[in-house]
Amino acid sequence: MRTALVGLDLGGTNIKSVLLDTRSLKVITKRQIPTLAHLGSGAVIKILAGEIGYLLRVAGSKHIGVAAIGLGSAGLVDKGTVRNSPNLPGWQNAVPLERLLKKELPGLKIPLAIDNDANCFVLAETLCGAAKGFQNVVGLTLGTGVGGGLVLEGKLYRGSTGGAGELGHTSIKYDGPRCLCGNRGCLEAMVGAGAIIARYGALNSKFKIQNSKFTVAEISARARKGESAAIRALAETGALLGVGLANYVNIFNPQALVIGGGVAQAGKYILEPAIREMKNRAMPFNALGVKVKPAKLGPWAGAIGAALLNDQGVALK
Amino acid sequence: MRTALVGLDLGGTNIKSVLLDTRSLKVITKRQIPTLAHLGSGAVIKILAGEIGYLLRVAGSKHIGVAAIGLGSAGLVDKGTVRNSPNLPGWQNAVPLERLLKKELPGLKIPLAIDNDANCFVLAETLCGAAKGFQNVVGLTLGTGVGGGLVLEGKLYRGSTGGAGELGHTSIKYDGPRCLCGNRGCLEAMVGAGAIIARYGALNSKFKIQNSKFTVAEISARARKGESAAIRALAETGALLGVGLANYVNIFNPQALVIGGGVAQAGKYILEPAIREMKNRAMPFNALGVKVKPAKLGPWAGAIGAALLNDQGVALK
Repeated sequence: MRTALVGLDLGGTNIKSVLLDTRSLKVITKRQIPTLAHLGSGAVIKILAGEIGYLLRVAGSKHIGVAAIGLGSAGLVDKGTVRNSPNLPGWQNAVPLERLLKKELPGLKIPLAIDNDANCFVLAETLCGAAKGFQNVVGLTLGTGVGGGLVLEGKLYRGSTGGAGELGHTSIKYDGPRCLCGNRGCLEAMVGAGAIIARYGALNSKFKIQNSKFTVAEISARARKGESAAIRALAETGALLGVGLANYVNIFNPQALVIGGGVAQAGKYILEPAIREMKNRAMPFNALGVKVKPAKLGPWAGAIGAALLNDQGVALK
Repeated sequence: MRTALVGLDLGGTNIKSVLLDTRSLKVITKRQIPTLAHLGSGAVIKILAGEIGYLLRVAGSKHIGVAAIGLGSAGLVDKGTVRNSPNLPGWQNAVPLERLLKKELPGLKIPLAIDNDANCFVLAETLCGAAKGFQNVVGLTLGTGVGGGLVLEGKLYRGSTGGAGELGHTSIKYDGPRCLCGNRGCLEAMVGAGAIIARYGALNSKFKIQNSKFTVAEISARARKGESAAIRALAETGALLGVGLANYVNIFNPQALVIGGGVAQAGKYILEPAIREMKNRAMPFNALGVKVKPAKLGPWAGAIGAALLNDQGVALK
């Protein structure tokens, strides 16, 4: 019998879900629905359960057995409990998401796993994306926040309480700008979307942020048109990112660094200066052995990785 | 039959060696001989082989079987080959140490393993030192250089080509002072012995470095006598070390951080401000779960860890 894996990516705005073929790791079906986070955790958990039910029915209608279900969430995820999820109001305290979700799915006999969304991202990119075939992979998601995930010796490394891989919250300037996490000079404070927009504003004297909807995508579009302030803002951001990459290359000696997230769509304008700076700073033998790659699976990486959470050992063989 | 493990620590000045009881992990015998590094790699390998022969004879005379031999060396160690060992003249290029050493020990049937000295340090401290019982441990050695080693999920993490754990070469100030490795603002450049002595010199206007023999040990002695410039130089160093510790706590979510090396003998003058700074900067849930511990095995940790290189799985059970 053909089998599949169900994966869900719980974001602040949308829930993305996929049904993934167990053997080919190809997406059979996918969809996106609003999270309705403002309704609180109880309502969101009911929506998640409904979405799982929907995918189980889709699989059933195609005579596909579902082998496992996985869910990726922002925040610190430890043994099924989510803490400090910044995008989900009312989730500030610890939410025992796995237990509550199982309660909404009585009689469910399929294994259900929950993990951090950046972990899901790097798992997906390692098993069927840009870092396919590698055993030691550092994943970074660039956006408003900067997230990180680690595949070491072919397995997700979660740390002692699920808190490992907070790569966006490592300082590259101890006396630098204050980060939302309380630290100073964190990579997130230096290369997050807010920092990029501020950097662009400082370089383009004619620019005034008209409204909060001005994005890095707009700066990238201006860079592609040849606007020097935009090119320079992205290049300076890339060089700072490269400082972080050099640190990770010296710490992990990985085979691949995969860069994803919305800001990564600035492409070469950020990645080329980042790679140059990394090579200038990292131990030469480590720098030689690492490939820096843009993510391949796009916005569905989180849901795909979630689907693979229960299946790491199998999928890696 | 009682069995033991042989461990050697190849330093720039001395070779330390131990015979370690396999069951109790206690040192049966130990000794130290000069490396004579100036004679070149060929001579040093002969000295190492002689030292192994000596320990095998000591074990034989006590009717103890030797189960494994391990060797720790400075530099990048990958599959028995040593690269970039800064303390050993003539070793700049890749030296296939394992192969050359086996050639000097014809007929040897005991497994022989070679690894980086900081890896040996953290392995020893995890298996029978300050971090005993923990699965995720970050080890730092503070001295002229700053070394690092990682035990993750109960095993040494070496990276793709043996270059992982270069914690001393992670930048905490991207525009900071130039490090010997070529990067800027590396932890080593900020809290290595040279930086501490320079910091003390800047704080104590009466102080002039008379000769190159002035050490951090002397600054520590002055701190213990209450000299404010010494106390402040060590406290500022500790705070900078704490920035690095916070980064490692956010990256690895470890159960323990073990701090060793000569500079760590400054004790609370460095460690207390380091822990305070780490707690101020790291993710609260990660900071809560980590113990910062001074190393316990002293200058013999490297040789003890080398003895355990072949025996990780067994010893951890």
